[in-house]
Amino acid sequence: MSGMWGNKIKYSIFGESHGEGIGMVIDGLEPGIELDLDFIEGEMARRAPGKDKLSTTRKEGDNFKILSGFFKGKTTGTPFCVFIENTNKKSGDYDKIKETIRPSHGDYTGKIRYNGFNDYRGGGHFSGRLTAPLVFAGAIAKQILKRQNIIIGSHIKSIKNIQDDYFNEDNLKESTIESLLAQDFPLIDINKKEIMEEEILKAREEKDSLGGVIECAILNVKPGVGEPFFNSVESTLSQLLFSIPAIKGVEFGLGFEITKLKGSEANDEFYVEEDTIKTYSNNNGGILGGITNGMPIVFRVAVKPTPSIGKPQRTVDISKMENTLLEIEGRHDPCIVKRAVPVIEAAAAMAILELIKEG
Amino acid sequence: MSGMWGNKIKYSIFGESHGEGIGMVIDGLEPGIELDLDFIEGEMARRAPGKDKLSTTRKEGDNFKILSGFFKGKTTGTPFCVFIENTNKKSGDYDKIKETIRPSHGDYTGKIRYNGFNDYRGGGHFSGRLTAPLVFAGAIAKQILKRQNIIIGSHIKSIKNIQDDYFNEDNLKESTIESLLAQDFPLIDINKKEIMEEEILKAREEKDSLGGVIECAILNVKPGVGEPFFNSVESTLSQLLFSIPAIKGVEFGLGFEITKLKGSEANDEFYVEEDTIKTYSNNNGGILGGITNGMPIVFRVAVKPTPSIGKPQRTVDISKMENTLLEIEGRHDPCIVKRAVPVIEAAAAMAILELIKEG
Amino acid sequence: MSGMWGNKIKYSIFGESHGEGIGMVIDGLEPGIELDLDFIEGEMARRAPGKDKLSTTRKEGDNFKILSGFFKGKTTGTPFCVFIENTNKKSGDYDKIKETIRPSHGDYTGKIRYNGFNDYRGGGHFSGRLTAPLVFAGAIAKQILKRQNIIIGSHIKSIKNIQDDYFNEDNLKESTIESLLAQDFPLIDINKKEIMEEEILKAREEKDSLGGVIECAILNVKPGVGEPFFNSVESTLSQLLFSIPAIKGVEFGLGFEITKLKGSEANDEFYVEEDTIKTYSNNNGGILGGITNGMPIVFRVAVKPTPSIGKPQRTVDISKMENTLLEIEGRHDPCIVKRAVPVIEAAAAMAILELIKEG
Amino acid sequence: MSGMWGNKIKYSIFGESHGEGIGMVIDGLEPGIELDLDFIEGEMARRAPGKDKLSTTRKEGDNFKILSGFFKGKTTGTPFCVFIENTNKKSGDYDKIKETIRPSHGDYTGKIRYNGFNDYRGGGHFSGRLTAPLVFAGAIAKQILKRQNIIIGSHIKSIKNIQDDYFNEDNLKESTIESLLAQDFPLIDINKKEIMEEEILKAREEKDSLGGVIECAILNVKPGVGEPFFNSVESTLSQLLFSIPAIKGVEFGLGFEITKLKGSEANDEFYVEEDTIKTYSNNNGGILGGITNGMPIVFRVAVKPTPSIGKPQRTVDISKMENTLLEIEGRHDPCIVKRAVPVIEAAAAMAILELIKEG
Repeated sequence: MSGMWGNKIKYSIFGESHGEGIGMVIDGLEPGIELDLDFIEGEMARRAPGKDKLSTTRKEGDNFKILSGFFKGKTTGTPFCVFIENTNKKSGDYDKIKETIRPSHGDYTGKIRYNGFNDYRGGGHFSGRLTAPLVFAGAIAKQILKRQNIIIGSHIKSIKNIQDDYFNEDNLKESTIESLLAQDFPLIDINKKEIMEEEILKAREEKDSLGGVIECAILNVKPGVGEPFFNSVESTLSQLLFSIPAIKGVEFGLGFEITKLKGSEANDEFYVEEDTIKTYSNNNGGILGGITNGMPIVFRVAVKPTPSIGKPQRTVDISKMENTLLEIEGRHDPCIVKRAVPVIEAAAAMAILELIKEG
Repeated sequence: MSGMWGNKIKYSIFGESHGEGIGMVIDGLEPGIELDLDFIEGEMARRAPGKDKLSTTRKEGDNFKILSGFFKGKTTGTPFCVFIENTNKKSGDYDKIKETIRPSHGDYTGKIRYNGFNDYRGGGHFSGRLTAPLVFAGAIAKQILKRQNIIIGSHIKSIKNIQDDYFNEDNLKESTIESLLAQDFPLIDINKKEIMEEEILKAREEKDSLGGVIECAILNVKPGVGEPFFNSVESTLSQLLFSIPAIKGVEFGLGFEITKLKGSEANDEFYVEEDTIKTYSNNNGGILGGITNGMPIVFRVAVKPTPSIGKPQRTVDISKMENTLLEIEGRHDPCIVKRAVPVIEAAAAMAILELIKEG
Repeated sequence: MSGMWGNKIKYSIFGESHGEGIGMVIDGLEPGIELDLDFIEGEMARRAPGKDKLSTTRKEGDNFKILSGFFKGKTTGTPFCVFIENTNKKSGDYDKIKETIRPSHGDYTGKIRYNGFNDYRGGGHFSGRLTAPLVFAGAIAKQILKRQNIIIGSHIKSIKNIQDDYFNEDNLKESTIESLLAQDFPLIDINKKEIMEEEILKAREEKDSLGGVIECAILNVKPGVGEPFFNSVESTLSQLLFSIPAIKGVEFGLGFEITKLKGSEANDEFYVEEDTIKTYSNNNGGILGGITNGMPIVFRVAVKPTPSIGKPQRTVDISKMENTLLEIEGRHDPCIVKRAVPVIEAAAAMAILELIKEG
Repeated sequence: MSGMWGNKIKYSIFGESHGEGIGMVIDGLEPGIELDLDFIEGEMARRAPGKDKLSTTRKEGDNFKILSGFFKGKTTGTPFCVFIENTNKKSGDYDKIKETIRPSHGDYTGKIRYNGFNDYRGGGHFSGRLTAPLVFAGAIAKQILKRQNIIIGSHIKSIKNIQDDYFNEDNLKESTIESLLAQDFPLIDINKKEIMEEEILKAREEKDSLGGVIECAILNVKPGVGEPFFNSVESTLSQLLFSIPAIKGVEFGLGFEITKLKGSEANDEFYVEEDTIKTYSNNNGGILGGITNGMPIVFRVAVKPTPSIGKPQRTVDISKMENTLLEIEGRHDPCIVKRAVPVIEAAAAMAILELIKEG
């Protein structure tokens, strides 16, 4: 139970945000994969903080070091370990949270779960920084999937109540995915960028934070991938997605909206086109009976507003078991939705790679 | 891979709707549990079809037979196997779907996944009938959880666009859960029953179907249950919930709505009451950092409209790879939301039992 | 933990010798395998008791019934369940062992492990009868391996101190394996049969029992199968082999004898023959670094003398915690080595199938 | 698949002997364990090379660095990662083995298994150096077991054909174990040390190598630990033991010798002493039906002669697929039995910890 996941390829995550570093063992990679380290760095950079005013100004060194399983530029097939040293740790900033638990963070639950022995500095093992190894693993998975022409892309569906367009049959194509991957703040309707960014900056000024929805699409997965029980495509994706801090909802296809339709409206009718079976609509998000049907896989995740806010909050000093007020200082993300995009895609890549039989 | 799930207790599901029968091996039950078979039968009856006009009039024999792991009225601790024979099979009804794939069912994806060798009769291994062993396993899990005072209850949050109330801090108490468990069509606001039922009967007359949302609450889980990664409470619950046919969305606490709030509105502030740490709000649905915080666990699932409808639908005859029309005959559920309630609770019970350390 | 095993194909064993029956779920079989049920019955018959004076005269009904995963004579790809009903149960015979624990059986350890709640009748879940589902699963595995030309055969290397020849480079060929599979009491040197059988009958008359060694060979496994750690060929085989009741030792190649050689004698030197790399000797039993080298896989298992003997034995009545004497009545095997042969082969087949990548 | 093992505590091994380093993630350690780092270093030193003429004179830096899961001197409960940097790598020494495969090593099988992409330097992932993380993990497991009074000790049962005494009911006590743990070359009959060492030095002079047998005992494990199938004590121990390079046989209790006894001689009769159930003999090595019976667990492993010898050997240059001769230069262990002792104990500790329910 715990920090290991996967069957065909197994992942073992480790590390704390203010300890020696964070990392991951990836076991089961086929030998001979020529890794594009620049691509991996690019993916890491998409997640990294400190790039502009929309994110925390904190700089983290996300320079990774491959400790094993990589020889002469290629995977060896034996366990692959990556390590990212923690270089910019200011433990002092965080010492007060040792006792004054931050609302909506894992401080309290982690303390109970680990009987008070977990590393509390900067959230420790619960820190969003732990998503860096996920992005690393996802960048490898993406490269493997790419060889089968499978591509993954996402956009910011909403920030607070400001909505981008949905993926639909018109925009859900490879060129859109490529365009999204090229955008720093990926949107289908790029006119929304300014309003969304303004809203985020306003929250920043108010020492507050915002959440949003990310919509992700996976193209070119063949039909027949997945299992009816326990490892349905939805099960596998959601298990990984709900491991990412701040995710509170996952829905596929029309998701919760499908419950408002009649069966005759919701059902995805089939037709044949060029010897391929397709559906007119894609309300099921490419998945039927837990198994892919060849249509794009589409899902959305709800990202809650960053729990770290500067406004005073009511909380408890658990050393004294007394109510108190907390004002979190320091540099925090007013909105992590943008930085969560590559993490969501990484989880999606890991999940799809697991489900596909022939890696 | 595949029909097995669980770590502490392992479940292995098997069977097809029109073969010999369906069943499950449950491995890892502690020895000496005195099973309340009447309670199990009651749970099975909640799921069973054929009770009224709101469901299919098809009668299924859900009489279970325990094949192993049960001796003198108690679990032995060795693998427990339950089997439910299929008694009411009319294969003829379903033979036409061998080639004419039903929209939004697993007919097509199953055929591809299993190279055409799977038992297609009545949906085979993809049939909703496979949820019967889940309910059986959940009924055992509920009994074990009850000993720790953990109780699970649900209500029909919506049918189409007709909404029941949400769980909230006023109604989220044991007496409400007990009341819901006693209702045939569980609602918080029982005045909605008539409108919902009318809507279902109307869909039935129109040879159409409806979906809805189920909201489920789990009370009295201690803080500290779950893991930060891969086996977070959300991960574990969602993996099981998305194994249930027709589920297209899962959200915890405020779920997707939390994305519209600011951090200062969304954060669950802490306070101390009688030496217990609580939160004023429960927007995170009892889970922080993947781990329970002692507040009620609350989640909702989206149940899509039953795919089997009598209305003519466009589809494909895959033996000829030609477009065709399908009119599904026979007795089908106009709305499976009600029957899905005990299945959702069963999955929740299995998931929570897995996560709790001391079984 | 427990009655489930496997990664690519998962096996879940269940049942007790005097309950409803015994069985197994086999999950992950590829779809479309045309099972040779006659072959399976033949394998079951090799293990079955009651055939001659060398075994128990007790007759067990080993008639199996396939409950799921099998349609129109072929595997469906969904979970496959087989069930073997218990037809010849005389619980009365065994009631006395409820308290008077049989030496070298699992009566005592099972009682402690399961807090006294396990089914003690006839050994319950610890009964040698539980090897029947293993043989069934092995018979399927053998059929799948056969398609890759992999064959498995064994002989009785010794009964007590009476030795058959070892496998060696002369006799280790397909024709020998076929000859062994055709023998009721498989030996390389068939002249030993009479002495061995006499020894067994003598033990029978003395109300005593004998053990022996089984040597097994697996031919035509390609080089490159296995893992350096945790799933080495030796690890995987031994884990399964030591699940079989009465096995107390497992050795590969020269096994313990290799420790008496010098490196220069023990090392298997390489040479090239017809573009294939071979070794002059096969002291490592076809496995180097945990991975197959293309030479025959050879291993031996130690089968302890049947614990059930008619002679009076000192033991304890654990209800009273008093020393007592036990005389086991009834029909027991004076030597289970012969009946263990197909069980060993079944475990070997399951292990090799697990290790081979392309099933 | 693969380098991960365990259920309650999960271990993930990684590294190559001449890459950046080697290490292990240990996931599932309970929080708050105060690790005795001196003890761990002592265990590492027992395995380390370069101490005397009996071993290789090669010096390896086995200085470990804990990367995560350890805070203020105690385990945190989150994944624990240890890393051992490779400091003394002379790749040049090993470059010739890239093509000229060393007999009885994993060079050939590894090359096939990983399509030639594995790191071949010094055996790479197949190197005996990978046992260092096992010893580290075992040292932690030993500390946890010690709290339940479980102790593990071993002696060199034989070098070539020179035999030490067996464990028996007289010497199998805590003081013997302590004495063995204190010996550099652990023997029950210390008079054998000189002859054994002479034999090893003679082999060294002859550019040859020797093997031997290690006998290990585990004291004070309560009855009732283990499972009847798949996770029997023997299954779990043997799976780990056969992951250790050079192990070719594992036997419990009397092992292969038990096959030469009659049931009446082999059976371990029970008696009561001070309200405890014991057996007069311990021919089953403390395990019945796969489960501990409270008697000492005793097993032996066969360690093959070190494959690296200086004598010329026939082998193949696989780049040319031509027969050739190989003379391995450099510093090699004439006998690794002594250095294998702590590795065997480590595997035993990991296995027993896995099997015990309450960690």
